Amino acid sequence: MAEREKPEERVTMEGAVCPVPLPHSERIVLGHGSGGKLMHDLIARSFLPPLDNPVLRAGNDAGVVLPTPDTQLAISTDSHVVWPLFFPGGDIGRLAICGTVNDLAAMGATPRYLTAGFILEEGLELEVLERVVASMQAAAEEAGVEVVAGDTKVVQRGKADGLYINTAGVGTQTPGMAINGAQAQPGDAVILTGTIGDHGIAVLSARGELGIQAQIESDVAPLNHMVAAMLEASEQIHVLRDPTRGGLASTLNEIAKQSQVGIVVQEDAIPVAAAVQSACELLGFDPLYVANEGKMVVIVAPQDANKVLEALRADRYGEGAVLIGEVVEEPKGRVLMKTVIGSHRVLDVLSGELLPRIC
Amino acid sequence: MAEREKPEERVTMEGAVCPVPLPHSERIVLGHGSGGKLMHDLIARSFLPPLDNPVLRAGNDAGVVLPTPDTQLAISTDSHVVWPLFFPGGDIGRLAICGTVNDLAAMGATPRYLTAGFILEEGLELEVLERVVASMQAAAEEAGVEVVAGDTKVVQRGKADGLYINTAGVGTQTPGMAINGAQAQPGDAVILTGTIGDHGIAVLSARGELGIQAQIESDVAPLNHMVAAMLEASEQIHVLRDPTRGGLASTLNEIAKQSQVGIVVQEDAIPVAAAVQSACELLGFDPLYVANEGKMVVIVAPQDANKVLEALRADRYGEGAVLIGEVVEEPKGRVLMKTVIGSHRVLDVLSGELLPRIC
Repeated sequence: MAEREKPEERVTMEGAVCPVPLPHSERIVLGHGSGGKLMHDLIARSFLPPLDNPVLRAGNDAGVVLPTPDTQLAISTDSHVVWPLFFPGGDIGRLAICGTVNDLAAMGATPRYLTAGFILEEGLELEVLERVVASMQAAAEEAGVEVVAGDTKVVQRGKADGLYINTAGVGTQTPGMAINGAQAQPGDAVILTGTIGDHGIAVLSARGELGIQAQIESDVAPLNHMVAAMLEASEQIHVLRDPTRGGLASTLNEIAKQSQVGIVVQEDAIPVAAAVQSACELLGFDPLYVANEGKMVVIVAPQDANKVLEALRADRYGEGAVLIGEVVEEPKGRVLMKTVIGSHRVLDVLSGELLPRIC
Repeated sequence: MAEREKPEERVTMEGAVCPVPLPHSERIVLGHGSGGKLMHDLIARSFLPPLDNPVLRAGNDAGVVLPTPDTQLAISTDSHVVWPLFFPGGDIGRLAICGTVNDLAAMGATPRYLTAGFILEEGLELEVLERVVASMQAAAEEAGVEVVAGDTKVVQRGKADGLYINTAGVGTQTPGMAINGAQAQPGDAVILTGTIGDHGIAVLSARGELGIQAQIESDVAPLNHMVAAMLEASEQIHVLRDPTRGGLASTLNEIAKQSQVGIVVQEDAIPVAAAVQSACELLGFDPLYVANEGKMVVIVAPQDANKVLEALRADRYGEGAVLIGEVVEEPKGRVLMKTVIGSHRVLDVLSGELLPRIC
């Protein structure tokens, strides 16, 4: 069979040649996958209008549906394209399981069943695939979920980058459970379960882009057991969200917009590991925008903040949990950071792409 | 940020350099995505041992789970890497919806909720993405399903091929419903809902690989309404499966193995459109191994065969339904074709890759 034309020889994706190239603004750029403003614009422009329905429009980590009157399901999906496939503290397999488990947990659901769709590049070593799948199984076992359906596609050499994994997940929850990004209320406490930026910097270090040998491990972990313990401790949890792509700042912005509230955080309350801080200074990154894969933002009624902190700190993945701020009436849809020198800085959503292929 | 090393400079997928290359047999080849023997071997070797559980091991189009005593769910996933993205009769968007809808329908489930995970290549025209998403929505509407969760990742130019789409799906079914590949019984009738090979040949023609201007359209369609009508007509349907990658021959082999029965089909009963037959002769393909995206194999108790044929023919996607053979005791796990000259030919599973990136 003839090889397809080289990319340079075609202009459209349909095999046809388009004599007038489209302007760059009409093309996908890396920032469309950033978790920041460009990605939100793409979703608002290209995905929501045609696919619109109330579940998708809610814009949460998982869609919640009611297949029968007494069963409420949360359904989520995540594709994983992290490079390299292995990095300190984890790999694409562990990431693929934890990403979807955490999206379901963030809806207050109990993750139950996962699917795994593999896109493999011709030439991938089977040994690499097998290590990744073994890592998926270990993470699934830790989370207590089962992979119940799978799919494998292979594309020609150069048409993928080793392997990509999509996982989708189904979780069950108590009917009427409503923990989601639109539930934050003025006065609520804002809790963060540990240090930020570890995952993003660990992946960068695996790429050899730090120029130094920093001992930074990704925090990638399944947070569902920790979330379950927290839900046991308090019925006043309003929002849970894992600050992945786009980092803590983007996640707080999403919540502020969905809930139409302001969020004020204290700069000196946000934990950043010293090695992550140094790496960020070296590279000119702000850790507030660097991805995490094992942290959760918890927004809870103020009277239950201590109960939640206690429950979190009893879990291995929540030992570093701290109160970082509070929800306020105004400015609606904005996030402010009270800096160490006492001034307020607006934390905006990330525009464009900070670190491509971090998850 | 530094560009990653060129593929030639690295040997392993981990960013490390491996001085001794692995033998070719230990690497992924295109045939691992074929739907045939190599893919089954890969699943048996690399996916099943670590991820093993009864639902996955059943090897059906969707996993069936029971989240609460009175709700039975079918869960399925499919990644789509078809090239080109648009072809006569369909596109990657319609394919992505129909593929998962049909996998759920093939389990006797009512498809309800879908997720969509996009992997976009940097440089993709937004206009292309929007046409694809519009096509997904049209297919979802036709099928009566909702996309309730989505995800977008972007990879660098040359690390994907326009776009790949994963869809996962959740369907509901009557508890106790057991239509699956292991239910075929000797004496059962084998029905095919129409002509074979249309999808594969339509995609090849869109690649310009036929060398002729054949007017062949893909059959890609959501079959769930047709399946529902058939289930209404008969309670004796034992197996449903859509003969996608690997074609009719591979699908019949899967069923023969799962049910531990023989299957005998009549060569002259299997409908092939004249244009598909000519294209296959030209290219040296056997239409029995060419992919379909809008057909179903139905295995039903013989006394209900006519009722099922009638129900199928009343649906626009089943007008060409015909009886093509029967299930027999022996040879267990094998498929035989009675040829037009009266001899029997063993229809084996496809080994290697006939047509890469057909779905």
